[in-house]
Amino acid sequence: MKYFGGIEAGGTKFVCVVTDDSKNILSETRFATTGPTETMGRVAAFFLEQNRTLPEPISAIGVACFGPIDPEPASPSFGYITTTPKPGWANTPVVQPLRDLFNVPVAIDTDVNAAAVGEGVWGAAAGMDSFLYLTIGTGIGGGGVFNGKPIHGLVHPEMGHIRMPHDWSKDPYAGFCPYHGDCFEGLAAGPAILGRWGQPGATLPLDHPAWALEAHYIAMALQTFICTLSPRKIILGGGVMQQEQLFPLIRVETRQLLNGYVSSPSILTEKIDDYIVPPGLGNRAGVLGAIALAQQAYQQGKGK
Amino acid sequence: MKYFGGIEAGGTKFVCVVTDDSKNILSETRFATTGPTETMGRVAAFFLEQNRTLPEPISAIGVACFGPIDPEPASPSFGYITTTPKPGWANTPVVQPLRDLFNVPVAIDTDVNAAAVGEGVWGAAAGMDSFLYLTIGTGIGGGGVFNGKPIHGLVHPEMGHIRMPHDWSKDPYAGFCPYHGDCFEGLAAGPAILGRWGQPGATLPLDHPAWALEAHYIAMALQTFICTLSPRKIILGGGVMQQEQLFPLIRVETRQLLNGYVSSPSILTEKIDDYIVPPGLGNRAGVLGAIALAQQAYQQGKGK
Repeated sequence: MKYFGGIEAGGTKFVCVVTDDSKNILSETRFATTGPTETMGRVAAFFLEQNRTLPEPISAIGVACFGPIDPEPASPSFGYITTTPKPGWANTPVVQPLRDLFNVPVAIDTDVNAAAVGEGVWGAAAGMDSFLYLTIGTGIGGGGVFNGKPIHGLVHPEMGHIRMPHDWSKDPYAGFCPYHGDCFEGLAAGPAILGRWGQPGATLPLDHPAWALEAHYIAMALQTFICTLSPRKIILGGGVMQQEQLFPLIRVETRQLLNGYVSSPSILTEKIDDYIVPPGLGNRAGVLGAIALAQQAYQQGKGK
Repeated sequence: MKYFGGIEAGGTKFVCVVTDDSKNILSETRFATTGPTETMGRVAAFFLEQNRTLPEPISAIGVACFGPIDPEPASPSFGYITTTPKPGWANTPVVQPLRDLFNVPVAIDTDVNAAAVGEGVWGAAAGMDSFLYLTIGTGIGGGGVFNGKPIHGLVHPEMGHIRMPHDWSKDPYAGFCPYHGDCFEGLAAGPAILGRWGQPGATLPLDHPAWALEAHYIAMALQTFICTLSPRKIILGGGVMQQEQLFPLIRVETRQLLNGYVSSPSILTEKIDDYIVPPGLGNRAGVLGAIALAQQAYQQGKGK
């Protein structure tokens, strides 16, 4: 039996788990994200303590990390959180200190790419080589697996920051994104619901017009992502998507917006119910994604 | 020496070439696209004639095809042109008749994905594992290589059909896309220039306001594609992009729209001149992309 460490490193809280060589969680801790020295110290303390009690030390660690990060192994700042506005965290190395301390492979990806990898191993997209994972909560982030691997490229995707049509006569809310105003995140993340309606989504009734408008913006984004990435499945997670009444609204409007142009039964028929879906791993997608990264890093390390 | 056949199968014309085992064109023919039987007959006749004169028969054929096509090898309609409105061409098999006649590997992809593969072998993105290829002409198509391979997924990308903000007070033109009206293609492909200004782009002066507006729509699309795909390079081809004055306008506005959010020297510095570029293979990108597909299919066939 091998053991693996997973870290869901969020801007608000950290979750650390140890699993067996599948996805069974043997131990878990969570704590608020404070400064990087204190926070990373608590991460280190947790895994050191686990190593004292496990039959053998953990074999690899994965990090599902808030960003932006540098995911490029050849880069001098690989494994760093780079330009985040979060106080104290800009230019913070995450991977190397863990490698130095534990002497095991340490993998990192964005929180959404990691969640996508987990969903591709154990969740709603198990075994698929091409799918999108979108999280809609305090912010909006997108990742996914394409041709079998997460997308990195120049940096990594920032799918919350696409622009879309905004009919000011129907929705005079200006959007809250400090960079782009009414980009997708600016119009549709949790703070936009609060800003537009004066109360958080969790307190709005199910038949409030907020949900039709929310579904409209999400469907416009999905049209763009379908036309751009041609994913085999779309997984929608995050706090806003806890509002399950959104799913049927989003499916109907995505189909309407595409208007028959993308000719696939997954869009044109009732199969759309299995095309636009919640995460199979629920709110464990992030931390189990980190475990999936760790297990992949361990396998790759063995292969060398 | 091995020989390869490439077919650029366009909705208006077909180009067929034979090359050596690099990209040197030994023979070429081009003819108007008529009905599928006549057109595919001319393709067959060309390669049969070549096989009579070459030292040995061609070893593989690649097709860069107008679409939509079914690029999924496991599908019953693999290698078919599927739902095109082009008269006579819906549900036309392209790959299997060539395999039957020549008994060699035959590869197919969309015209833009094929052009991207060619650019990745010999062109502006040589050796890159992640880049976008966009063609802006009579229509707008997007493809690219991500994690080393073209994107297929559910079907294949249809990047011309993303939606974007459209300020009707500044641009009252409604867009010409029969499916979506003012999607990217509806607002920015060649027919939109003609429809909006009453004359084709090729006859408009370099300082006509058409070009700033054209650059604006293209830059909005690039913001979306950068946020979604994080490409290492963006290649812009097609008839509209023959207007070279567009490139600096597009670069400046793409940077303005991203507003510092994607922190990469390729966007923030003068390196953007090497980030958003014309095709390295010029107007040969399509047919040489078909040759690249053929050579890959031959190598894969040898590996089995």
